[in-house]
Amino acid sequence: MSAKSCLALAIILYFCLLQCFAASGSTRKAKIIPCKTLVFYFHDILYNGHNARNATAVIVGAPAWGNRTILAGQFHFGNLVVFDDPITLDNNLHSTPVGRAQGFYMYDSKEIFTAWLGFSFVFNSTKHKGSIHFAGADPVLNKTKDISVIGGTGDFFMTRGVATIMTDAFEGTVYFRLRVEINLYECW
Amino acid sequence: MSAKSCLALAIILYFCLLQCFAASGSTRKAKIIPCKTLVFYFHDILYNGHNARNATAVIVGAPAWGNRTILAGQFHFGNLVVFDDPITLDNNLHSTPVGRAQGFYMYDSKEIFTAWLGFSFVFNSTKHKGSIHFAGADPVLNKTKDISVIGGTGDFFMTRGVATIMTDAFEGTVYFRLRVEINLYECW
Amino acid sequence: MSAKSCLALAIILYFCLLQCFAASGSTRKAKIIPCKTLVFYFHDILYNGHNARNATAVIVGAPAWGNRTILAGQFHFGNLVVFDDPITLDNNLHSTPVGRAQGFYMYDSKEIFTAWLGFSFVFNSTKHKGSIHFAGADPVLNKTKDISVIGGTGDFFMTRGVATIMTDAFEGTVYFRLRVEINLYECW
Repeated sequence: MSAKSCLALAIILYFCLLQCFAASGSTRKAKIIPCKTLVFYFHDILYNGHNARNATAVIVGAPAWGNRTILAGQFHFGNLVVFDDPITLDNNLHSTPVGRAQGFYMYDSKEIFTAWLGFSFVFNSTKHKGSIHFAGADPVLNKTKDISVIGGTGDFFMTRGVATIMTDAFEGTVYFRLRVEINLYECW
Repeated sequence: MSAKSCLALAIILYFCLLQCFAASGSTRKAKIIPCKTLVFYFHDILYNGHNARNATAVIVGAPAWGNRTILAGQFHFGNLVVFDDPITLDNNLHSTPVGRAQGFYMYDSKEIFTAWLGFSFVFNSTKHKGSIHFAGADPVLNKTKDISVIGGTGDFFMTRGVATIMTDAFEGTVYFRLRVEINLYECW
Repeated sequence: MSAKSCLALAIILYFCLLQCFAASGSTRKAKIIPCKTLVFYFHDILYNGHNARNATAVIVGAPAWGNRTILAGQFHFGNLVVFDDPITLDNNLHSTPVGRAQGFYMYDSKEIFTAWLGFSFVFNSTKHKGSIHFAGADPVLNKTKDISVIGGTGDFFMTRGVATIMTDAFEGTVYFRLRVEINLYECW
């Protein structure tokens, strides 16, 4: 084997090594560092019989002992709420929305405030086009809680991750504002 | 180092390179080319008080101002519909079904027709066994819209992807037919 | 090229090969062998008008011909049930719960018993902290059925997999107990 061909071999090997470590390295990093982080606020105004104009959410399911105008007793157990909430970049309800949070939550315990969420962030702005889908359990009174990003489309094609939700403000049972930090760990 | 051992080294290196590029290549390709594409139609006949025999879907949730026989005003905001729709290979409602589309949609805006979907395609034919699960937001009136494939079982074990939905036909609010092109990007 | 530098080259190559095969091997293995297997039981006691104290689940949606105290005719088509069920390690309802199964099921066919499930296992014990999210179609009367694990948080961060459900016992329509074997194929 000539020195020349061994040098060529070494150069090829070098790029191979780069590939190898790039591949295993990205796997490892992917476990720890998000490939994208986004922060948004969204605003939920629940229909209560008097706010049809402003309401962004409405009770559509209730237990036998409840109705669809007032959240039921026993920690709202069994109330299903459908929503179409504005998403903003800051905590001001009147900021220009950058998208809509659309889906549902259902209060699912009679002993504590807890809910199950299934919804999407739908973007159609100059900055983001596409959607991010969420699912998970929300122990409502915890300071922060994690739910899962289970998929996405458009700019968020095939994404996965974890979203940390924080109740940023609330007024009685009619208005609440959530801060959501989305950490994506699979980006395509 | 003999010429022989250097040759052996070169052969090993060659296979290593193949592995390296196969690994990184498949990651790249996976981002662009689906590992499987499937096209189906499914047919939704909504119960309206007069079609109990043929209906494949039924309103089970409604806002305070609605009922469960007629879709509510304000873009059906708050209507939750559960369905068990036949899946066919062509656009003919009377073709032999190859599976069932089972799950729900909920109209979630009072300002525009938009819905949130959670459902599965359930197959038990000679061609496909198993299920594909979908979730996502559906801006009903858009010509095409993308939702996410969030998982699967059987032949579709662990799959993920994107499904493009197109309203292929509709008759009033009682019948609609969707064409679904499923592009899977993770196949196990 | 000296024998020494060729030896160094060989050693580097050896580690490169290890990396290569480790990477491709884990992909292959991941397809077949779960990275984690867990078995739990959960217990669902449906509110029937007389068991408010013990009930862990409640009907919140029904078709026009149904109500929210008794499951509707036609295979319960259109009934939506929200639940907060105790999870136990064995099949005894009175064992100390290790977590809660929270979410919903909806009966979605008028010709057969079948349901669509969306729920989470929420753990906060010394052994497990975090949540696992499930979605899928459940052909109720099948001996076993597979649904998908679509995400997770905490100890189950970013996980995916398949859960095999078996009806372990039931009493009329008010109590049932499910055995769930969770096989996770993506662990972070």
